[in-house]
Amino acid sequence: MKWLAPQKASGFYSCSSNAINMTTKEDLEAIENQISTIQVSSHGETASPVLAHGKFKTAEKGRNWGWLLSGFISLNILLLGIAIVSGSVFNKIQISSSHLLIFLILLVILTTVWMVYYKIHTSRVYHAVLYKDSHAGPVWLRSGLVLFGVCSVIMDIFKIVYYAGRMHCESPVKIAFPAVQALFVIVQTYILWVHAKDCVQIQQIITRCGLMLTLSTNLMVWMTAVTEELLHQTVAPVITSSNSSSNNDHRFNDPMQGRAESSECKCSHNMCDVFEKAYYYLYPFNIEYSLFASAMAYVMWKNVGRQMDEHHSHKLSFSPWDVLVGPVAGLIVLVAGLATFVVYEVDVAKEDPKSTEEALIMHYVMNIVAILLMSITTLVGCIIFRMDKREQVSGKNPTRSLDVGLLVGASLGQFLICYFTIVAVLASGVKGHINGLNLACSILTVIQLCLQNAFLIKGLHREPYKETETTTVFANVMAVRERDPERRSSSIVPAHTLPIPLSLFQGRLSWKRRILKEICAFLLLCNVILWIMPAFGARPQFDNTVGSDIYEFQTWAAVVNIGMPFGIFYRLHSVASLFEVCLTS
Amino acid sequence: MKWLAPQKASGFYSCSSNAINMTTKEDLEAIENQISTIQVSSHGETASPVLAHGKFKTAEKGRNWGWLLSGFISLNILLLGIAIVSGSVFNKIQISSSHLLIFLILLVILTTVWMVYYKIHTSRVYHAVLYKDSHAGPVWLRSGLVLFGVCSVIMDIFKIVYYAGRMHCESPVKIAFPAVQALFVIVQTYILWVHAKDCVQIQQIITRCGLMLTLSTNLMVWMTAVTEELLHQTVAPVITSSNSSSNNDHRFNDPMQGRAESSECKCSHNMCDVFEKAYYYLYPFNIEYSLFASAMAYVMWKNVGRQMDEHHSHKLSFSPWDVLVGPVAGLIVLVAGLATFVVYEVDVAKEDPKSTEEALIMHYVMNIVAILLMSITTLVGCIIFRMDKREQVSGKNPTRSLDVGLLVGASLGQFLICYFTIVAVLASGVKGHINGLNLACSILTVIQLCLQNAFLIKGLHREPYKETETTTVFANVMAVRERDPERRSSSIVPAHTLPIPLSLFQGRLSWKRRILKEICAFLLLCNVILWIMPAFGARPQFDNTVGSDIYEFQTWAAVVNIGMPFGIFYRLHSVASLFEVCLTS
Repeated sequence: MKWLAPQKASGFYSCSSNAINMTTKEDLEAIENQISTIQVSSHGETASPVLAHGKFKTAEKGRNWGWLLSGFISLNILLLGIAIVSGSVFNKIQISSSHLLIFLILLVILTTVWMVYYKIHTSRVYHAVLYKDSHAGPVWLRSGLVLFGVCSVIMDIFKIVYYAGRMHCESPVKIAFPAVQALFVIVQTYILWVHAKDCVQIQQIITRCGLMLTLSTNLMVWMTAVTEELLHQTVAPVITSSNSSSNNDHRFNDPMQGRAESSECKCSHNMCDVFEKAYYYLYPFNIEYSLFASAMAYVMWKNVGRQMDEHHSHKLSFSPWDVLVGPVAGLIVLVAGLATFVVYEVDVAKEDPKSTEEALIMHYVMNIVAILLMSITTLVGCIIFRMDKREQVSGKNPTRSLDVGLLVGASLGQFLICYFTIVAVLASGVKGHINGLNLACSILTVIQLCLQNAFLIKGLHREPYKETETTTVFANVMAVRERDPERRSSSIVPAHTLPIPLSLFQGRLSWKRRILKEICAFLLLCNVILWIMPAFGARPQFDNTVGSDIYEFQTWAAVVNIGMPFGIFYRLHSVASLFEVCLTS
Repeated sequence: MKWLAPQKASGFYSCSSNAINMTTKEDLEAIENQISTIQVSSHGETASPVLAHGKFKTAEKGRNWGWLLSGFISLNILLLGIAIVSGSVFNKIQISSSHLLIFLILLVILTTVWMVYYKIHTSRVYHAVLYKDSHAGPVWLRSGLVLFGVCSVIMDIFKIVYYAGRMHCESPVKIAFPAVQALFVIVQTYILWVHAKDCVQIQQIITRCGLMLTLSTNLMVWMTAVTEELLHQTVAPVITSSNSSSNNDHRFNDPMQGRAESSECKCSHNMCDVFEKAYYYLYPFNIEYSLFASAMAYVMWKNVGRQMDEHHSHKLSFSPWDVLVGPVAGLIVLVAGLATFVVYEVDVAKEDPKSTEEALIMHYVMNIVAILLMSITTLVGCIIFRMDKREQVSGKNPTRSLDVGLLVGASLGQFLICYFTIVAVLASGVKGHINGLNLACSILTVIQLCLQNAFLIKGLHREPYKETETTTVFANVMAVRERDPERRSSSIVPAHTLPIPLSLFQGRLSWKRRILKEICAFLLLCNVILWIMPAFGARPQFDNTVGSDIYEFQTWAAVVNIGMPFGIFYRLHSVASLFEVCLTS
C-alpha cells in the first residue's frame, strides 16, 4: 500500500530509459490506474486534478494556451517597459519619470491584487496545490528574499520621507510609488515565502498569467532601479571629474530632468540629504530583491500543473567533521579578505590618489591570490569528477534547470566586467603595477568563472552518493551468488563487514569524496568573501580610472552597474550550489 | 529483420508515456541489445558510436564536457567581442576598428580551418555521420543562406575595390578582412549546404567546439555589421539634420575616426563613391546571412551525437487545388502591397516633405488593412485549433524547439520597434493623420505578432494529419466488431466507402482542415509582402521623424537597426513555418 500514496504516484510517469525500471512498467501501469480510480472516488470531485493521462500530458507538454498567453503578457509588459524606460532616459520633455512611475504603480497594484486573490483562492479550494516541489525555493533564496525585502522596505520609507520634504515641487507620484512598492514587497515576500514550492493545479491559465505578471513587474522594478542607479552615478562624477563629456553637462543643466532639480527645489525639512544618500545606498539591495523574486516567480510558473516526482527527496546529512583542510584554508582567505576589504574602504575614503593606489594594489593582490587558489582547487575538483564517474540525475527538474541557467546567466555579469577591463587595460598599454595587477586579476577571474561553472554544473547533475544503496546492492549480489540456502546461511556477510575488494572500492570512493567535500568547503568560503566585497560597497572598477578613461564614463558605468548586481547574485548562488554539491558528493 | 535497421533503432529510446509502447518495452530491450551486438561485430570497430547505453545517455543528457567546453568557448569569444566592439565605438584612440578587424580575421580564419578539417575528417571516417536530421536545414533556410551568401561575397568584393583605392591612407587590414570574409562565406555556405543535417558521431568534443566557434564567429560578424551600419546611419544625417547632438558632431570631426576620414584621404580611382554606396546597400544581406548561418550552426551543434528517431519523416503531399479563397485573397494583398511599395519608394526618393507625407499615409493604410485581415484570419485559425483537438507531437526535436525559439526571438525585433513607436507617438500627443495611422499600425502589428506566434507554435506542435492511418484504424475497428469470419466477408466495407457516421466525421474534419489550409495560404502571402517591404529598403521609421524626435537619433537608429533584421528574418521564417503548418493541417 506504500506505493499507492498519491505523493509518490507520478514518479511512474517520469521518463526513464534504464532497464531496471522497464521490467516493472506493466505492473506500475496497473497500480497507477488503481490510483486514479481511488483518487477520483475518494475526493468525489470529477474535475480534481488527478493523474488522468490526457491532463498530465497537456501539463507536461507546456505549450498550451495558458503557457502562450502568459508568455505574451510578460513579453508585452517588458517591451512596453523598455520603451518607456528608454523614453524617460533619452527624452527631454514628453516622457518624464512620472510616466514611468505611473506605469510601475499600475503594474505593482495589479500584481498585488493578483497575489491576494491567489492566496485566498488556493486556501479555499481543497487540493488546489496537490504537490510541492522540494527543490523550489531553497532556504537561502527565501532568506535572501526576506533580507533584501526588509532593506527594500526601509529604502521605500526613506524615499517617502525624502519626497515628503519636497512635496511642493515634486509630482505626488514620487511619493505614491515607494508607498505602493513597500506594500507590494511585503505581500510578495509573504506569498513567495509560503508558496514558493507550490505546484498549482487549479485555474492554471490564470495562475500562469499571474505569475508571469509578477515576474514582469519584478523585472520592470529591477530595470528602473538599475537605470536610476546608473543615472545617479553618471551625473554625480560629472561635477568633479575632468573628462566629462558635453552630453553629461547638457543633461545635468537641463532643468526638466528630475534628478537635477535639487538646485531649484528646496527641501522643507533638513534631513533630505541624509535620506537621499541613505536610499541610494539601499538601491543595490532592492535590485537583488527583484532578481530573487523574479527567479522564484519563474520556478513557480514552471511548476504550474506539474505532478511531482518525489523520489529524490531523501535527506542528506552533513557532518562538519568530515572535512578540515578546506574550511580552515577557506577561513584564512575569508579573514584575510575581510581585513583587506576594511583597509581598502578606509584608504579609498581618504580620497587621496596615493592611498587609493595603495588600496587598489592590496585589493588586487588579495583577489589574485584567492582566485588563483580557487582556480587550482576547482580544477582538481573537475579532474576528480572525470575520474569518479557517477550516474547523471535523470528526470526533468525545473528548479535544477533554472539553477544552472541562473548560475551561467548571472556569471555573465562578471564575465562582461572582466572582459571590458581586459580590453581597457590592454588598450591603455598596461602601464604601471596597478594595471598589470588589474589585468592579471581579470584574466584569472575569467578562468575561475569558467572552471567554477563547469564544476557546479557537473556537480549538480551527479546522482547523490547513497551509501546504504551501494552496500545493499553488493550484499544482494553476494546473496544471489549463494543460491544454495544451506550454504547461504553460513557464508552471508553483514553489510558492514564486507570482503576485501568491496571495502577497497569503498575506500577509494571515500578518498575522492573527502577531497570533493574539502574543495566545496574551501570554494564556499572563498565565494562568501568575493560576495561580501562588492555587496558592501567595494568598487575598484570606479576607483581605478582605466575603465572610464578608455570607454566613455556612461558606457563604463552601465557595464559595471548592470554587471555588478548579477555578479553579487552569482557569488551568493554559488555558495548555495556549492553547499548542495558538498552534501551530495 | 526490418526492426534491426540501425536507422530505426533509436526510436525505442524515445521517451514515451503511452500505455501501448510500454507493453512491448521488454521485447524491444532484447532487440536493441541484439542491434548493438550486430553493429559492433559488423563494423568491426569497438569505438564505433553504437547504441550502447552509456554512450547514448551521455549524448542525450547534453551536460557533458564537450557541451560545457564549447559553451564556454562561445561565451568567452562573444564577451571579448562585445568589449572590443564597445571599445572601438566609444574609444577615440587606443581601440581602433583595425583592432576589431584583426580579432575578426583571426576568428574567421580559425573557423575556416576548422570547417575544412571537418569536411576532410568526416568524409574519411566511415560512419562519422550515422544519422541525418530530416528537420534540420530546411530548403528555405539553405536557399536563403546561398542567396545572402552571394550578396555578402559581392559586398566583400566592393569593399576590397573601395579600400584598394585608398591603400595609401588606410590600414591594410581593411582590405584583408573582406578578402578573408569572402573566402569564409564561400566555404561556410558549402559546408552548411552539404552538412546541415548531420548528426556527427565522432570526435564529439572537437566538433562541438568547432560548431560553437562557427556560431560565435557569425554572431561577431553580425554584431560588427550592425554596429557599422548603425554608425554609418548616425553619422550621415548629422550633416543635414538640425537636431544633431553635440556628441555626434564631435565624432564626425574627429580625424582619428575611420569613418570620418573621407575628407582627408583621397581615393586613387574615381569609382570609390559608387562602391561605398553599393556595399552599404548590401550590408543588410550580410547581416541576414550571419543570422542564417548562426541558426544552422546551432542546430548542428544540438545534433552532435544525436541518434535520430526517423519515424516522423513521412512525406507530406501538397495539392495547390485544395485551397482557393486564401491564395486569391493573399495574392490581392501581395499585388496591392507591391504597388504601394513601389509608389512609396518613388515618393520618398523625391525628398519633398509633402510627397513623403503622402507616401507614409499610403504605406500605413496599406499595412493596417493587411495586418487587420491577417489578425482576423489568424484568430479564426486559433479558434479552429482549439475546436479541433489533435495529439501534440511528442519526442525531442532540436530543430522544432529552435524553430519556435527563433520565431519568438526574431519577433522580439519587430515587437521592440512597435512598442518604441507606440510610446513615441503617445508622447508626441498623436498629432495629425500620420501619427494616428502610425499608432494604429503599431498596435495592430503587436496584436498580429502575438496571434501569429500563438498560431504557429500551436500549429508546429500538432501531430500531422494522417488520412490513411485514420481510415485504417476505423477499418480495423469494424473488422474487430465483426468477429464472425462468415459474416465478416459479406459485411466488411472498403476503406473508401465508409458508413455514414464515419464519413460525416471525416467531412467535419475536412471542413476544418480546408479552412486551416486557406488561412495558412493567405497568411503566407501576406508575410511575403511584409517581408519584401523592409527587405528591399522601406524605412518608414526614419522617413517619419517622430521616433528620432522623441528618442535621441542614435537610440532610435539602434532600435530600428537591431530590430529590423530580426523582423525581416521573422517574416521569412514565418513563411516557411506557415508552409509546414499548411502541409500538416
